[in-house]
Amino acid sequence: MPEDDEILVEHRDAVLLLTFNRPDRLNAWTPSMRRRYFDLLEEADADPSVRAVVVTGAGRGFCAGTDLSALGDTPEPDVDERAISLSIRIRKPIIAAINGPVAGIGLVAALFADVRFAAEDAKFTTAFSRRGLVAEHGISWLLPKLVGAGAALDLMLSARTLPGTEAHRMGLVDRVLPASEVLAAALEYAHVLATECSPASLADIKEQIYSGLDSGLETARADASNRMVTAFGRPDVREGVRSFHERRRPDFPPLGG
Amino acid sequence: MPEDDEILVEHRDAVLLLTFNRPDRLNAWTPSMRRRYFDLLEEADADPSVRAVVVTGAGRGFCAGTDLSALGDTPEPDVDERAISLSIRIRKPIIAAINGPVAGIGLVAALFADVRFAAEDAKFTTAFSRRGLVAEHGISWLLPKLVGAGAALDLMLSARTLPGTEAHRMGLVDRVLPASEVLAAALEYAHVLATECSPASLADIKEQIYSGLDSGLETARADASNRMVTAFGRPDVREGVRSFHERRRPDFPPLGG
Amino acid sequence: MPEDDEILVEHRDAVLLLTFNRPDRLNAWTPSMRRRYFDLLEEADADPSVRAVVVTGAGRGFCAGTDLSALGDTPEPDVDERAISLSIRIRKPIIAAINGPVAGIGLVAALFADVRFAAEDAKFTTAFSRRGLVAEHGISWLLPKLVGAGAALDLMLSARTLPGTEAHRMGLVDRVLPASEVLAAALEYAHVLATECSPASLADIKEQIYSGLDSGLETARADASNRMVTAFGRPDVREGVRSFHERRRPDFPPLGG
Repeated sequence: MPEDDEILVEHRDAVLLLTFNRPDRLNAWTPSMRRRYFDLLEEADADPSVRAVVVTGAGRGFCAGTDLSALGDTPEPDVDERAISLSIRIRKPIIAAINGPVAGIGLVAALFADVRFAAEDAKFTTAFSRRGLVAEHGISWLLPKLVGAGAALDLMLSARTLPGTEAHRMGLVDRVLPASEVLAAALEYAHVLATECSPASLADIKEQIYSGLDSGLETARADASNRMVTAFGRPDVREGVRSFHERRRPDFPPLGG
Repeated sequence: MPEDDEILVEHRDAVLLLTFNRPDRLNAWTPSMRRRYFDLLEEADADPSVRAVVVTGAGRGFCAGTDLSALGDTPEPDVDERAISLSIRIRKPIIAAINGPVAGIGLVAALFADVRFAAEDAKFTTAFSRRGLVAEHGISWLLPKLVGAGAALDLMLSARTLPGTEAHRMGLVDRVLPASEVLAAALEYAHVLATECSPASLADIKEQIYSGLDSGLETARADASNRMVTAFGRPDVREGVRSFHERRRPDFPPLGG
Repeated sequence: MPEDDEILVEHRDAVLLLTFNRPDRLNAWTPSMRRRYFDLLEEADADPSVRAVVVTGAGRGFCAGTDLSALGDTPEPDVDERAISLSIRIRKPIIAAINGPVAGIGLVAALFADVRFAAEDAKFTTAFSRRGLVAEHGISWLLPKLVGAGAALDLMLSARTLPGTEAHRMGLVDRVLPASEVLAAALEYAHVLATECSPASLADIKEQIYSGLDSGLETARADASNRMVTAFGRPDVREGVRSFHERRRPDFPPLGG
């Protein structure tokens, strides 16, 4: 795969590493880059050899948002049939390794990943209100569920810039580290998911958490009961219990297509 | 406007400052004061010269809740056709500068503001369970969305008193400062909203965040797409992008009536 | 009541203390222990002399989850007509005193308590994904409402083990203390609820918080208005206001059957 691709792709055992690769533009998104990102996520979903995905940025930034220089003076919305929230439907965990600045649509993409590791000094901003824009792509739905409604209003109304350390205190990211350690830590975390956790469990749990954000308790409970019965028909539960008793690493089967 | 008004009103450029003004009663609410507050918020919504609102208390308190001395020994509920959650529908950001004690209905009013600045030693209490009351005016819906369900139950069941510093750690307030700096910091924040952010964006985003608390992701996404298309038909996006490229402060039009 | 009961029961004034009592198994749950827990909660609900409940574990653990040794090599789901979320419907506050390790179903039980006190070094883990299991009994619905969606995904996907101190920073527990002080602090908190707060208010507020997690603002507001009118017909409001004015402890009536 040529170095000038907009997104670099590496397989590290069962972990797929995707790297936004327009470092001279702080990896600002173009329409083609976004389509490529969606394609790669859908391929990861279908590929039994992939058990977790890590997303990061090349160079000193994660993603500066939509490339405004490409918009020119008469900007128009770029409507895609697929939405950034597509990542929710990928049945494998997606870990964002936020190595540097993240803004606008780049922040939305990071928030729709499942778990976030960030550099202590990475700069975060929602950006929208300062460009005359609205809360795009469902971030208004997701952000209060990550940091609470008050912090969400603060970040969305003011579009103020905050560092990774404050993002961590708010719950906007799940781990904060020196910039040089972020990617390694995210890869290690993904490696644990890929080797210690049942792929079928991960798929169920991811879907349960996101669907539970929009459903009532009774619906979630009935759904959990159904899934539990199905789970007991899979080899994963027996292997999970056996490996626990035998104090060894479990050997779970891959997720079907 | 006479000094003995229950709420003082000041225009500071595009920021409207409202001050609860019954300092000898820690600004405890009366029915007339509540109606006046609602009237002023609705006027602020309609006034194109107002781009942000700051609410604070005169003297050493923010608002001690309903004035119980006015209730006497046979208290009755004071039902108003307008609810405290009315502030959600005001299309302009409302910042609470919580300078001192806040309790009961005063806390509900502060929580239904969009962003909260608080004094480190301001005392917070929900109060209701210790007076034989219920969770009034929608606070049972809002509080878990601000601080999580566990902290909401802790605060609502026990009605314990906590200082601003702990309120900040919980996410109950967004900024905590020495008491003498709270109002200035809130006014500065509101000034940034009024001068750096698009009024149309602020109105959209505020409505999106609150409606997203009650709607599913797909509804929020479809709504965001519609608003994005509308936004690109406003002068704000062009000005937002141009001013960004020209590294100057944006000049956004006021919000229509 | 014999010492070898699976759950020990003590009445301490108006506080009911329940102790999971299989200390040699870290209080891992058996089907009979779960049924006993549900029975005891339902009895507490109906007993006017009980105003708050504290749940803890005997020995060094809180609850290690389902007793896997009882499952054997061909585990099957244990379906009960009552769910762990039953504790939500108990009209009295339930405080978990998490004295030590808590995992799987034990964690679900702790999270469906209303308020959590934990030992600083208590080890927490969701456990499910490492046993091939799904998010059981509604934890996928509740956990994001306690700690936010990002932290919930982190904890549920990885099933990593975290100490009480980190659980507290996340909002997973409400208070963290040295292990030797956890139970005493939880009992003291429950004592305050039992003596300072109206039982009728506690029942209303608990129901309002949980139902508000699944209902919209307008539903919650209308419900709050109805409850407020009802509350003003109870002696509790008059006593709450009078005792406040007279600076004495209130004397609220018990909750009816």
